[in-house]
Amino acid sequence: MQKLVEIYDTTLRDGSQAEDISFSVDDKLRITEKLDELGIHYIEGGWPGSNPKDAEYFKKVRKLSLKNAKVVAFGSTHRPKTNVENDSNIKALISSEVPVFTVFGKTWDFHVTEALKITLEENLELIFNTINYLKKYAEKVFFDAEHFFDGFKDNPEYAIKCLKTAQQAYADCIILCDTNGGTLTNEVERIIKEVKKSINTPLGIHAHNDSDCAVANSIIAVLNGITQVQGTINGFGERCGNANLCSIIPNLQLKLGYKCIDEDNLKKLTEVSRFVYEIANLMPFKRQPFVGESAFAHKGGVHVSAVRKRPETYEHIRPELVGNRQRILVSDLSGKSNILKKAEEFGIVLNPDSPEVQAIVDAVKTLENEGYQFEGAEASLELLFRNTLGLKRKFFDLIGFRVIDEKRKGDEATLSEATIMVKVGKSIEHTAATGNGPVNALDNALRKALERFYPELKRVKLRDYKVRVVNSGKGTASKVRVLVESGDEESVWSTVGVSENIIEASWQAIVDSIEYKLYKEKTKKGEV
Amino acid sequence: MQKLVEIYDTTLRDGSQAEDISFSVDDKLRITEKLDELGIHYIEGGWPGSNPKDAEYFKKVRKLSLKNAKVVAFGSTHRPKTNVENDSNIKALISSEVPVFTVFGKTWDFHVTEALKITLEENLELIFNTINYLKKYAEKVFFDAEHFFDGFKDNPEYAIKCLKTAQQAYADCIILCDTNGGTLTNEVERIIKEVKKSINTPLGIHAHNDSDCAVANSIIAVLNGITQVQGTINGFGERCGNANLCSIIPNLQLKLGYKCIDEDNLKKLTEVSRFVYEIANLMPFKRQPFVGESAFAHKGGVHVSAVRKRPETYEHIRPELVGNRQRILVSDLSGKSNILKKAEEFGIVLNPDSPEVQAIVDAVKTLENEGYQFEGAEASLELLFRNTLGLKRKFFDLIGFRVIDEKRKGDEATLSEATIMVKVGKSIEHTAATGNGPVNALDNALRKALERFYPELKRVKLRDYKVRVVNSGKGTASKVRVLVESGDEESVWSTVGVSENIIEASWQAIVDSIEYKLYKEKTKKGEV
Repeated sequence: MQKLVEIYDTTLRDGSQAEDISFSVDDKLRITEKLDELGIHYIEGGWPGSNPKDAEYFKKVRKLSLKNAKVVAFGSTHRPKTNVENDSNIKALISSEVPVFTVFGKTWDFHVTEALKITLEENLELIFNTINYLKKYAEKVFFDAEHFFDGFKDNPEYAIKCLKTAQQAYADCIILCDTNGGTLTNEVERIIKEVKKSINTPLGIHAHNDSDCAVANSIIAVLNGITQVQGTINGFGERCGNANLCSIIPNLQLKLGYKCIDEDNLKKLTEVSRFVYEIANLMPFKRQPFVGESAFAHKGGVHVSAVRKRPETYEHIRPELVGNRQRILVSDLSGKSNILKKAEEFGIVLNPDSPEVQAIVDAVKTLENEGYQFEGAEASLELLFRNTLGLKRKFFDLIGFRVIDEKRKGDEATLSEATIMVKVGKSIEHTAATGNGPVNALDNALRKALERFYPELKRVKLRDYKVRVVNSGKGTASKVRVLVESGDEESVWSTVGVSENIIEASWQAIVDSIEYKLYKEKTKKGEV
Repeated sequence: MQKLVEIYDTTLRDGSQAEDISFSVDDKLRITEKLDELGIHYIEGGWPGSNPKDAEYFKKVRKLSLKNAKVVAFGSTHRPKTNVENDSNIKALISSEVPVFTVFGKTWDFHVTEALKITLEENLELIFNTINYLKKYAEKVFFDAEHFFDGFKDNPEYAIKCLKTAQQAYADCIILCDTNGGTLTNEVERIIKEVKKSINTPLGIHAHNDSDCAVANSIIAVLNGITQVQGTINGFGERCGNANLCSIIPNLQLKLGYKCIDEDNLKKLTEVSRFVYEIANLMPFKRQPFVGESAFAHKGGVHVSAVRKRPETYEHIRPELVGNRQRILVSDLSGKSNILKKAEEFGIVLNPDSPEVQAIVDAVKTLENEGYQFEGAEASLELLFRNTLGLKRKFFDLIGFRVIDEKRKGDEATLSEATIMVKVGKSIEHTAATGNGPVNALDNALRKALERFYPELKRVKLRDYKVRVVNSGKGTASKVRVLVESGDEESVWSTVGVSENIIEASWQAIVDSIEYKLYKEKTKKGEV
């Protein structure tokens, strides 16, 4: 019998407290659906009493047909000098019409007297009345014991009294919150053991990562009998974030044998992580355990040759179990074995002892020193391999381009226009295009010029465009690295360009993208 | 009596195995000096046998005069069919001429037979011979027991035998390595307790973060008697990284009373973290515990009003202890209390009940919806406050600008030139400038045009320029957000611009930067 652990996601509430994160109602609904697909048990959608956006979310979320998850509304114990039934926050909770409410209350005496400015006894009444009243309107009421660990360290008797009060009001789960995130793993274990002596209501853990121990704290809690884990996707959350469910779920399930979500769903974890980054409009954290792009990436020469033979030599789990993949990185640190592995992927046959392999190692090293980075631009890397091996094919010559950005008066928009002249075989094409900004204009003009000769380019779309300053500190004269992601119906490829001039860097990446596409097309037709 | 814990930094060796990181020799020397200033005990500089860059580092590092740290050279046990004294890696170690060597060896039987392809007995000989031989050439020899935890779980007897062999060869410290980073905190505790039964050589811990538990694992190790902690600044390292010293040191020192570095040096921790990010040319991870920009940032309205009164309500330590600072964020999630706190910082007197406060909340919300972000652009925010309050001052009018980027032939550089016409009072200035890219050209032209009227602008320098695509997925037509950091001798300020056109977005940020400077100058002179 596998032991079950309930997963409670608060990405939409606590997660949205993170710096740089601001979800629209529509974003929240899309994330709700995604979390439901993943098999999360509880999705805390928001705090309906706190802002109109969350209220709107609860109206709309009812229309979704969820398969696994129950949507939860979050709120606080009722206000001191108000009756519970007249409290506007409590009314907002009820009108959210969800099956589960989570109510947070104070358990740290200092917060009761300093922040709420009421007596310790009055706070117990707030806890009891709120839970007791809300039980009539919901399937389940959970109690978030705010600042529980700090409270326990300060005044264990009172902290436990708060939990007992929640238990007397028939809370369905009492969640021990490390609100300030400062508690260390050994303390979490010790305190939970104490709590279990006087509380038999099911317990949950809600950890924050201020000590960099939120995942370990959540796991030690489960090992000590806690049955609900609260956290967020990617560890989003106020300050240093909440406990990261993308780490907790696979740790519990793959290493400790607990059951959280379906094994098949676990394979969606990486996709869900990246989806949430995308919606939050944040760069994924590459080194993120389990789901990060670098989580199973190998660079050191020793490691690369070992994992090529036996992945378990340097991988703690098989990346496929969480939907991630092994990556072999090419860099100046790495030896020839990385280059050989890459060549294999590209379908290029290389003799390990040939001088060509060293030539590629050197070429990569030189360009990386100039600020290029091929880890995210495999199409440019493949072109580099082929060029170094003398397999380059030229599809067009640039005769010249000019890009003009113009603004007339302070309150008018800036207009961008590009002209371009290219030569294909003996034909010359001279054309122009506008665009949203100089790079877009140039991209449009180049495509327009080449489509006459290579109609397959009509199907290619630029999917993403990223700019990164490579050597910060020089103001607008810094070197920039441009990464371009292109795609058609069949595939997606990425290219890179580097220059002090953003137009030049973008040009390189766009040209690589087009040459890569044309090269692949010729290969397909057997013309190369 | 405070218990001492030795801190061993491997940012320069294991840290440089991380994706996207490639340190030059000069970078490594600068980091060495910085770590020495911080008071780190051991700095692992590299693996002299593995690449010429590391060999060069060891030549040059001798010329530094370090105050606290000992530099360590890293290497493996000698090769199976070679005598220790003839092994080129061992020779490279010796010729590095540092006081301490760290040698790693296999302790997982599977690696011995599968990777090294030798007998278990032969591996013990490699360990003994290597340590025993190197002891003659160094003050101290440390033994990194590679894959120790996995090895112990598989074959505890053999794993312990390896440690005993290192002990017999008089290793000065035996470091238990969780090389694959998959071990959980409870296992680390259990296994260390076992090890201590048969080993009395001082022990170290070297954890990786693949389970997201590296910090907790290092701390539980110390609580169980381990006296050396290996890790890296910011947790840089292969795959998910190494144990993060920026979290471990303050946890041990501020919460558990161990002594790692001087209390005064602890205040440099945030600076060192950012210095290493800068050298590595990576964006700092904002949510990083203790030292991250968001680590003490408060957004939620409830939290903001509480920390304004008593910081300990939502902060686990005082940020100043690690050289970080509290930040109050402005965002659409936050209430009026954030706006009031910000106004206070800006020296603007606001009545909490005035309609102006709501007007500012609304203005911020609207702009944030369009992709603006003021969390990193406080100067733009201050201008927004003043504009909304009707305090705006106009310093110039733009009549128009034109930026031209031109490339003639495929192999020539792209040239950028800007022309601009501005009006100040009744004077018109019409000028032009070139630059590295269109934004730099435009920035140069605007400064040139205005310096005649406002000579104080001559002292202003653009310090950093960042571009971020706001709504990814639309290719080169995406909206971009530009952040500009400017400074003079006295201060540094940041501004923001957003547009589909990067030139327009940059223009906004540059204009804000100039207006902010001129505004401050007028205020200083008492003219506003």
